[in-house]
Amino acid sequence: MSSLTPSLLRARAYLASVVEPPAPAVNVFIAEHGAEGAAERVQRGAVPAAVADEVQARASRISGIGVLDEAERAGMRLFVPEDPDWPVEQFSALSGAASVGVTGMAEPIALWMRVPGDMRWLAAPSASIVGARASSGYGEHVSADLAHGLARSGVTVVSGAAYGIDGAAHRGALAASGRTVAFLASGADVDYPAGHARLLRALAEKGAVLSEYPPGTPPRKHRFLVRNRLIAALGQATVVVEAGARSGATNTANTADALGRPVLAVPGPVTAATSVGCHEMVRTGKAMLATKTSDVVEVITPIGSSPLAEIVPQERETDLLDSDARCVHDTLTSTAVSADEIALDTGLALRKVRSVLPSLEMAGLAARTAEGWSKT
Amino acid sequence: MSSLTPSLLRARAYLASVVEPPAPAVNVFIAEHGAEGAAERVQRGAVPAAVADEVQARASRISGIGVLDEAERAGMRLFVPEDPDWPVEQFSALSGAASVGVTGMAEPIALWMRVPGDMRWLAAPSASIVGARASSGYGEHVSADLAHGLARSGVTVVSGAAYGIDGAAHRGALAASGRTVAFLASGADVDYPAGHARLLRALAEKGAVLSEYPPGTPPRKHRFLVRNRLIAALGQATVVVEAGARSGATNTANTADALGRPVLAVPGPVTAATSVGCHEMVRTGKAMLATKTSDVVEVITPIGSSPLAEIVPQERETDLLDSDARCVHDTLTSTAVSADEIALDTGLALRKVRSVLPSLEMAGLAARTAEGWSKT
Repeated sequence: MSSLTPSLLRARAYLASVVEPPAPAVNVFIAEHGAEGAAERVQRGAVPAAVADEVQARASRISGIGVLDEAERAGMRLFVPEDPDWPVEQFSALSGAASVGVTGMAEPIALWMRVPGDMRWLAAPSASIVGARASSGYGEHVSADLAHGLARSGVTVVSGAAYGIDGAAHRGALAASGRTVAFLASGADVDYPAGHARLLRALAEKGAVLSEYPPGTPPRKHRFLVRNRLIAALGQATVVVEAGARSGATNTANTADALGRPVLAVPGPVTAATSVGCHEMVRTGKAMLATKTSDVVEVITPIGSSPLAEIVPQERETDLLDSDARCVHDTLTSTAVSADEIALDTGLALRKVRSVLPSLEMAGLAARTAEGWSKT
Repeated sequence: MSSLTPSLLRARAYLASVVEPPAPAVNVFIAEHGAEGAAERVQRGAVPAAVADEVQARASRISGIGVLDEAERAGMRLFVPEDPDWPVEQFSALSGAASVGVTGMAEPIALWMRVPGDMRWLAAPSASIVGARASSGYGEHVSADLAHGLARSGVTVVSGAAYGIDGAAHRGALAASGRTVAFLASGADVDYPAGHARLLRALAEKGAVLSEYPPGTPPRKHRFLVRNRLIAALGQATVVVEAGARSGATNTANTADALGRPVLAVPGPVTAATSVGCHEMVRTGKAMLATKTSDVVEVITPIGSSPLAEIVPQERETDLLDSDARCVHDTLTSTAVSADEIALDTGLALRKVRSVLPSLEMAGLAARTAEGWSKT
């Protein structure tokens, strides 16, 4: 923790506020010079053209200490990659994707947290739940249920803070007293959407409300798309609960896919427009089908480390019979009949009928009387 | 048609009545000796052991002419493989599967039709629709809708005659004045289930009610499983609309799969027990997801011969903008601002902002005034 000096925080706050994310060139520049070296060079204007493009508009208008002070006054904290709790493994997938040419990918330079808290669990098993704002009652029910199950299994839930599927997921996780993270497309202090002000407060206290945008930054359409990459990266898998033919959730799913993360989609009625996107993703092989918590746990848990809930169809006592025995059993009634009559009725050779009947009797499925054979 | 002699029909009627299907050994025996030669040998008892096993119980108790007379009195007709309308290609998949060791497979020796009719369309494009008897209102709606769509596309619908998904499929196809076939697990003249007596009458007149069981044969549990292979074979694809964790429809789907036919499953709410089997089939890769008629038509139609209905998301005028242009557009409001202010707000380099604004103006998405730039 000693590496988190005021100077480092100031440098990260400055760089994170100067850029409009994603900023892959600045990320590479920080990797070369360290955050403090990079900030100092950006302030002096001593940067390569690619970095200049990402910082030029705001470089001279922002002060790192100013942003930090403002955040502190609002009770917020800056969370930086040098922090030992930073989810290195999850976010480094963004740099990895950027380095192989996936556009729009870059790790966040820093994250603001609405309420400071223990962040060790960010690196725990995690799953992102995303979906339509204009969700159905069914979708919200499934989202809450899935998040509840994941939270109870010790999986951190990751989502945005939108109405619909996002909100339902957080509520489900909170109801299970689980861990849940909201990434905002505005400053972490901004109540957006306004109707989620209470939910955001609860999330900040019991989970985490995070943003790579400096305090006070208003949400903008493109910021939702940019923010989606953080949701896709932090979750070890992304589950789309409901998505219409055109949905932001599809964008998050595509990003998760580009990051090499498993994508799952929840089916719904084919008569509902809210599930069209989910079905299309499954149909085209982009997503696996998810119907229950264990389907998600299965893909984020190393093989063999978690017992899976399987569908175990109820066994009937006739299940163990071979097809001849089943034929004979089917034909028996409470009225006793001879083996010969059974052969005629079933079409089975008499010797087969005769060999099958005693085993049915032993299994308690047939009874022998003086008049012949009947069902028990 | 001249090959359909009374003697041939008598021989087929006799053989089909003597066996309890499936009867692979008798099928091979017929292929060797012809139906008349095979029937004569069975009557004499001059048959190999495998054939004897399949015919022994009833060989001496049945008369081919008796069965034919009975059928004729009931207004039925015997449909035989020598008929030029016999769907050779579809049913031969059963012999193919039997020859590679799939148990329970064998072509029907003959089929009784409740009402004689033109059968040329049996060989037309076809799809089987199967599912739970204990279906939901949703499942019945989807089944009827799918069958209606398929029938309108000129696809023959194939199913059983059970309550639930089967019945809904036939009703959907009939409503489209389409072709639809019911395979019974009893004699084709038996109204089973009783509540479908009217539906069966309509099917017999406007489609076809078929069975490999002689007239009057009662339904038995195992006959449903045996009958399922005919549904799986006649449809070029099998669609499971609803299936619980344990369902006869799963059996038909497995048979279709064993015959090398595409299997599709319709998703539903994950909260409904009636869709558990469908979801499991998709999850394990046994079935493809089907949400609409075109998904089925696509797999039974040779590539390129049918235009497919695709989901075409509505385009917005901002869709064609690159990400810089979209950022700038997002930031514009009705209040005019300078390019410099836009650069500060978006974090984009001023030269980029300056290059983007005129193109937005040309696209009618931005307006330039003396005070600066605003949204149109």
